[in-house]
Amino acid sequence: MQLAELSLRSAVSIATIKYYLRSGLLLPGERITATQADYGEHYVHRLRLIRALIGVGRLPVSVTKEILDAITASPDDPDEAMVKVLSAGSAAQEHNGAEGAATSAKPNTSGVTDARSLIAEMGWCVRRAAPATKDLGDSLDALTELGVDIGWQTLLPYAQLADEISKLDSHQIHGVAGASLQAQQAALVTVLLEPVLLALRRLALEDKLSRQNAEESRKAQ
Amino acid sequence: MQLAELSLRSAVSIATIKYYLRSGLLLPGERITATQADYGEHYVHRLRLIRALIGVGRLPVSVTKEILDAITASPDDPDEAMVKVLSAGSAAQEHNGAEGAATSAKPNTSGVTDARSLIAEMGWCVRRAAPATKDLGDSLDALTELGVDIGWQTLLPYAQLADEISKLDSHQIHGVAGASLQAQQAALVTVLLEPVLLALRRLALEDKLSRQNAEESRKAQ
Repeated sequence: MQLAELSLRSAVSIATIKYYLRSGLLLPGERITATQADYGEHYVHRLRLIRALIGVGRLPVSVTKEILDAITASPDDPDEAMVKVLSAGSAAQEHNGAEGAATSAKPNTSGVTDARSLIAEMGWCVRRAAPATKDLGDSLDALTELGVDIGWQTLLPYAQLADEISKLDSHQIHGVAGASLQAQQAALVTVLLEPVLLALRRLALEDKLSRQNAEESRKAQ
Repeated sequence: MQLAELSLRSAVSIATIKYYLRSGLLLPGERITATQADYGEHYVHRLRLIRALIGVGRLPVSVTKEILDAITASPDDPDEAMVKVLSAGSAAQEHNGAEGAATSAKPNTSGVTDARSLIAEMGWCVRRAAPATKDLGDSLDALTELGVDIGWQTLLPYAQLADEISKLDSHQIHGVAGASLQAQQAALVTVLLEPVLLALRRLALEDKLSRQNAEESRKAQ
């Protein structure tokens, strides 16, 4: 199919597809004339994947490219794709501009110390340089600076719930019938369940808030 | 103090402080000469708060301003600040450019239907227009399109864990000694625990991955 049809089928604009081609996220199509190229069926799937990782997963282009390369290199090995995702650091770090840099530059690392204490207490087996450790430390530092006292002991029940979540994730990634495309499944579950989890927490929080307001109204009557 | 000292004390660059002043996130300081202004001690705290919401929480400037206004208007009412945060929609939606728009424009809303089924099954009391419902639906649509079959039944155990998390959050927000600054506490806990939760899940996932690799190596011997 040609570019216009590919755009319609994938619901990605022509300008965006051209940008993906320039940045190497998509390989060039097969040239049919000097100005036209032909794109195979698999381009539709690849474009949906890119849109999901960048659009829903909020990953930067460079990280998306690394994950796609890992998936392409060994499509049936979910672990390699997950290592790439977990090594890429959070979208938060990448998306921060000046503010992020200022946060990273500050010398206070008591948050990272707290993060390591929590990891040790949970018995989690993670690389010392795992980007998530720094992400966790930075967030704890920011809360401490603002007078919100959340030490690692307070986070322990959160960590236990996160551990339960990771067991569900692991089942989603490895429990799928058929080993084919497991690498893609691993990347998608790891990245795309992040907004799902945040949305679920916000819905649950809204529920707690409205129940409490209803309770207060009842008492006031 | 003058601008240079405020910048040092808050670890926010002068250029960024000037941007916050222009965008109304910070009120102007007290003019002392035609070119200089004096900033009180509370500016340091306010700047840390802004940096946390924008830098760590990844909120857009417009949403940050709404939350700050809610905190300033009723500093001891945590609920109003939480409503603002929960109504603002996720950072994901705001940060998406062309990709986000393309995702929003697609007509398929089976994800939103699934999200409503899940909310009903959980018995969550949320507004029908809660932005988190749409976020959840969009993420589910993206996964479905990519062949990852995660219906609302599969998400049920995730929703139950999210419910447990929201109970911990509620305790953090309301269980604090002294009612003062509860609005700020509510906004910070709601927003800044998001990156904390994602970091905890990634650490737990890395743990599961490395345990499984160790197990496979043991079996292969």
